[in-house]
Amino acid sequence: MSTRVPVVEKILSANERLAAENRARLDNKGVFSLNFMASPGAGKTSLIEQTVRKLAGQLNIAVIDGDIATSIDADRAAAAGAIAVQINTGGECHLDAAMLQDALPKLDLEKIDVLIVENVGNLVCPASFPLGTHQSILIASIPEGDDKPYKYPGMYRGVDALIINKVDLLPYIPFNMEYFRRGVELLNPGLVTFPLSCRSEEGIEGWLNWVLEAVRNFGKTR
Amino acid sequence: MSTRVPVVEKILSANERLAAENRARLDNKGVFSLNFMASPGAGKTSLIEQTVRKLAGQLNIAVIDGDIATSIDADRAAAAGAIAVQINTGGECHLDAAMLQDALPKLDLEKIDVLIVENVGNLVCPASFPLGTHQSILIASIPEGDDKPYKYPGMYRGVDALIINKVDLLPYIPFNMEYFRRGVELLNPGLVTFPLSCRSEEGIEGWLNWVLEAVRNFGKTR
Repeated sequence: MSTRVPVVEKILSANERLAAENRARLDNKGVFSLNFMASPGAGKTSLIEQTVRKLAGQLNIAVIDGDIATSIDADRAAAAGAIAVQINTGGECHLDAAMLQDALPKLDLEKIDVLIVENVGNLVCPASFPLGTHQSILIASIPEGDDKPYKYPGMYRGVDALIINKVDLLPYIPFNMEYFRRGVELLNPGLVTFPLSCRSEEGIEGWLNWVLEAVRNFGKTR
Repeated sequence: MSTRVPVVEKILSANERLAAENRARLDNKGVFSLNFMASPGAGKTSLIEQTVRKLAGQLNIAVIDGDIATSIDADRAAAAGAIAVQINTGGECHLDAAMLQDALPKLDLEKIDVLIVENVGNLVCPASFPLGTHQSILIASIPEGDDKPYKYPGMYRGVDALIINKVDLLPYIPFNMEYFRRGVELLNPGLVTFPLSCRSEEGIEGWLNWVLEAVRNFGKTR
């Protein structure tokens, strides 16, 4: 008697297929990768600058910068010491796995420990397009207001760590941290968060340690 | 001898056709309409609250609030005294003309002078979907940073007035107003701007006068 075992196959969309290819390539080269997502102006580039500067000598970090126009962000990342590649999306509101696939050959992955992909500033669309990176990081910021988790649930639901940037502005802005955190916990229970200020550098240490630890764990398991 | 005159017809996309229908309906009812666009947290809802409160008694203002989830913004607009209708886009990153067309019957347009449509918080996608409103208003904010015109040119290019919100935070944030304005001027020469703070109310008067004047001109010309 033969038993038929149903094979469960996930039908991958074109983007998911390319994302899987990107992941395999990064795994193969031993590059730990992060997808930075946020509203415009929340501090993605500032966090990249801080991360690259503070971890110089410990990690080789490359940055792929997605923007609709200009190379302002890639220039800033390069000035901070990263190997930086620019993707101009030509109007597109998010990066997708194909864009990352096109950009990867511009980097010598053998020499890189960590790849940070800076997505387009947008709290909606990037959440729907996995790139193949290992972890997704959301950068929220105090001036955006404490209601953002409730209003952009798709983004808050899908990330692996949350930066709460610009805490130096807390004295000047009404922001109910408990209300904010309640929303986050509702959507993404147990999500690790780093309240910090890229400007004053308050709280940066915790984030840097998380990156170092994540890279160590990645080295152990792959 | 017969002369054939070539008729130039603009092929309207589905969205543009519906937008034109919306415009005709608003014109017909004498409702002056504004499309508020901005990043998440720039202050669209705060500006609506201020506008509705300060112009109460002079103008009947209705608000249609577009959000991915929740009715937080519509509730705030209603609390400020507006007739408020909520559109939940169910994940969509922008409003389109069809959504506005569905929402309009929920308002008694005969009794309304001004309709403010609050778009989804997004500096990219809403720029590509005209709704049929008379004017597009972009709300920028100081904490977003002074490079936003350069990085989101599509949005800055297409609007009829620009609010620069949260000027009360200027002492605490590095923001080069001249660099910002140069970018705006490059993309949208002569664009009328209103630096203001919804929180401190500094500069609000200029914006309110612009609305009153725009409503008067609308009454004269239609």
